[in-house]
Amino acid sequence: MDFSAVAERLTLGCRVLAEQEIIDAYGHLSARLPGSENLFVINRGMSPALVTPEDFVVMDLDGNVVEGNGFPNQEWPIHACVYRARPDAGSVLHSHSMWSRVFSISPVKLSGVLMGQTVDWNEGLPVYRDAGLIRTVERGEKMVQMLGKGSAMLLRSHGDVVVDRDVVPTVMRSITLKQNAQVLDRALAHGTPDYWDLQEAQPWVEPKAPSVTTAHAASLASRVFEYYEARVNGRLKRLLDADGG
Amino acid sequence: MDFSAVAERLTLGCRVLAEQEIIDAYGHLSARLPGSENLFVINRGMSPALVTPEDFVVMDLDGNVVEGNGFPNQEWPIHACVYRARPDAGSVLHSHSMWSRVFSISPVKLSGVLMGQTVDWNEGLPVYRDAGLIRTVERGEKMVQMLGKGSAMLLRSHGDVVVDRDVVPTVMRSITLKQNAQVLDRALAHGTPDYWDLQEAQPWVEPKAPSVTTAHAASLASRVFEYYEARVNGRLKRLLDADGG
Amino acid sequence: MDFSAVAERLTLGCRVLAEQEIIDAYGHLSARLPGSENLFVINRGMSPALVTPEDFVVMDLDGNVVEGNGFPNQEWPIHACVYRARPDAGSVLHSHSMWSRVFSISPVKLSGVLMGQTVDWNEGLPVYRDAGLIRTVERGEKMVQMLGKGSAMLLRSHGDVVVDRDVVPTVMRSITLKQNAQVLDRALAHGTPDYWDLQEAQPWVEPKAPSVTTAHAASLASRVFEYYEARVNGRLKRLLDADGG
Amino acid sequence: MDFSAVAERLTLGCRVLAEQEIIDAYGHLSARLPGSENLFVINRGMSPALVTPEDFVVMDLDGNVVEGNGFPNQEWPIHACVYRARPDAGSVLHSHSMWSRVFSISPVKLSGVLMGQTVDWNEGLPVYRDAGLIRTVERGEKMVQMLGKGSAMLLRSHGDVVVDRDVVPTVMRSITLKQNAQVLDRALAHGTPDYWDLQEAQPWVEPKAPSVTTAHAASLASRVFEYYEARVNGRLKRLLDADGG
Repeated sequence: MDFSAVAERLTLGCRVLAEQEIIDAYGHLSARLPGSENLFVINRGMSPALVTPEDFVVMDLDGNVVEGNGFPNQEWPIHACVYRARPDAGSVLHSHSMWSRVFSISPVKLSGVLMGQTVDWNEGLPVYRDAGLIRTVERGEKMVQMLGKGSAMLLRSHGDVVVDRDVVPTVMRSITLKQNAQVLDRALAHGTPDYWDLQEAQPWVEPKAPSVTTAHAASLASRVFEYYEARVNGRLKRLLDADGG
Repeated sequence: MDFSAVAERLTLGCRVLAEQEIIDAYGHLSARLPGSENLFVINRGMSPALVTPEDFVVMDLDGNVVEGNGFPNQEWPIHACVYRARPDAGSVLHSHSMWSRVFSISPVKLSGVLMGQTVDWNEGLPVYRDAGLIRTVERGEKMVQMLGKGSAMLLRSHGDVVVDRDVVPTVMRSITLKQNAQVLDRALAHGTPDYWDLQEAQPWVEPKAPSVTTAHAASLASRVFEYYEARVNGRLKRLLDADGG
Repeated sequence: MDFSAVAERLTLGCRVLAEQEIIDAYGHLSARLPGSENLFVINRGMSPALVTPEDFVVMDLDGNVVEGNGFPNQEWPIHACVYRARPDAGSVLHSHSMWSRVFSISPVKLSGVLMGQTVDWNEGLPVYRDAGLIRTVERGEKMVQMLGKGSAMLLRSHGDVVVDRDVVPTVMRSITLKQNAQVLDRALAHGTPDYWDLQEAQPWVEPKAPSVTTAHAASLASRVFEYYEARVNGRLKRLLDADGG
Repeated sequence: MDFSAVAERLTLGCRVLAEQEIIDAYGHLSARLPGSENLFVINRGMSPALVTPEDFVVMDLDGNVVEGNGFPNQEWPIHACVYRARPDAGSVLHSHSMWSRVFSISPVKLSGVLMGQTVDWNEGLPVYRDAGLIRTVERGEKMVQMLGKGSAMLLRSHGDVVVDRDVVPTVMRSITLKQNAQVLDRALAHGTPDYWDLQEAQPWVEPKAPSVTTAHAASLASRVFEYYEARVNGRLKRLLDADGG
């Protein structure tokens, strides 16, 4: 996959995140360029909700733009430092999502209370508490150390960082992060939530039942993104505006 | 009523539930096939918000697809186990509704605080607390045992199951479940709500006044669904976009 | 003003209330027929969000339909009892507004915390706590006794009743009721709000400054409704969709 | 820049604030007329969400309309008193924003919990607690005294006043005020938030990194408003309705 194909995919990811109000005037989404381990594609400094494929550039891990026009947001070290430290990371999102901001200053840790997150986020997400943007490699490395092998972390008063193997999983994880925060937030207003302990939560990560074929599993995985895509390409809107028979 | 008529009705039900953000990429709605007690119609594994009538299949209570293309979500035992245990059940919904998820981990039971629910849900909805999807008959039977004769139950960190005699009542009950949760959630933030005791709540289920004729009662019952249908077939939108004179 | 002019005005009122999600499948809005003190105009039993002028009828205070087709909701005594007891009442709304429902079961009274309501609602709105619809004159009279000279009251687990001199003021008061509840609800989650005492609040009802001419005052009064009307006749939407120059 | 150019800019500012539901039927936005220190441009008394450039007038600091048709809201002293006391103020907003109203009666001060506000609003915004509209110069001067050198203050049960050097910064600050209130509101429901102390927060106001050129910095500054403008001129809507590839 070449630069322009990655830029197309990132554009779609940004549209989905914009519709979800996870990105707006702030935030940036990137993906490692396949076959070039030290290069990643990221949008230039602009409102990520408004990007088109032409707004992306290729950057190396030292912050040099090697292809495309413009320069990314000054917080590019968030991305470069994750890609350097985490070979498994194929895509990185930094957002100012309201729900991540809430838990970034909450006395309660954002832990996994929804089915798929009960094990991964069982201990609660780490929070980078220092003031200041992550615009130096030094800060980026401190941040990455806190992230460890995790898939998400919070930045105090600022937002979050979400990491996954590719664009679609990163976007979907960001949506899950928001939903997990919303549910925990409401339950906290009622008292102490019914948290999971690690052992009890294990069946959530059990292997798929044998009756689920590989093709079927792939179809299940893609259907979730299909829904969010339908919210930004007019498909869902057409279904709900037309005569619903 | 044949398969295709049921599929049409389920499609409309899914549209209404999608507009209400009760279903999205997750959830499934089914209905028993009239005249065939051991068969039910359910959408194939896909985002339920995006279904069309062609996306439904007929399944028997052992999980065999007997008509239509594709295979339902692996949690089909939720439906099959309810239909086997509850002859009164004509339609079953499983959703990941945010509000059901909130109360599924809340220290407070989701009990009936809105007029129509004060008796039915007086003790608070049961919560299935085990981890893991309901993709075996064994889990489905445990779930159904907790449901008992009830119309709704919660699945911890996961969502809910709603049961009623037909598609429209099941959809409407699901909307009521959401509204009941929203109102209780807000009141809980103020202190201890003014709950009903069973005896005091009885007048909510009193027989209709004699002046209400049968025809009139039927008209009252259908008008509620008419409103939600108007939200997905363009009718309400046209009223609110046009000159409101 | 004749029946059809009142029906036009009530239709517009219903549109505004529907857009505000104060009425939906439930609720009914009425107005006294000018010049006929014992007659009022009200929509027939249907979703009030969907009414057109043809859906209204004229009813007398004993519940007889004297003009128009169809029959109103069985809770017509809410309206008839208010018009009989309150000569100052020119319009009555019954709604299932979520925010009124929240405070109808809250341990905290819904009192006036927004500027215009600090004196009128200083003691907090009364709550009719009995179970059952208000479909008898007996219940209607008990309800009206609790309302007294007030402009609004709550019905436990059910909704509210709002009264004012004409359709537009009743609709606007209903919107204010919702906003007042929303603001109080949020502040309650922070601790004890900064409530007003009656004496301290007096300047909120001070006479208008002399510089405000009568014509100017009338223009100020109508401008608020103009905004809500612009939300349902396409005007605001056109402003926000067009190039904003 | 002349009157009509300022009116165009204020119209766009009002559109953005209307879409954000910060202004609606209430509120007014003004700007000092460049080159005429004692004159400012403000909309006439009407719903600010509905203004067009023709709805603006020029007023002097004593409340005389010197150009244009109509008369501003009677709370014009809010604007005149700020412009007289604060030579740095180029634009003033008065709004009834729900979130400002919430904190205007909250027992908790609205302090800066989002990155850019942690220093400016560290002590929490002042609250003008007297009843009554600010329609005299006497009240306006008392209000301005409480505002001091600040960029925002709250009016109890009423709304807020926001001040900045020009229209766009004032509009953006108002949006930030809302977002800051929303995040603090949610965190307060969890317990005591992780507030900043002044010394710890200093890096949030550190000078820009040398690598950020002046041109680049200007581009970063304008991009935020570009996003909010895209929400009211159809651009974002077109991106999210079209095929998102």
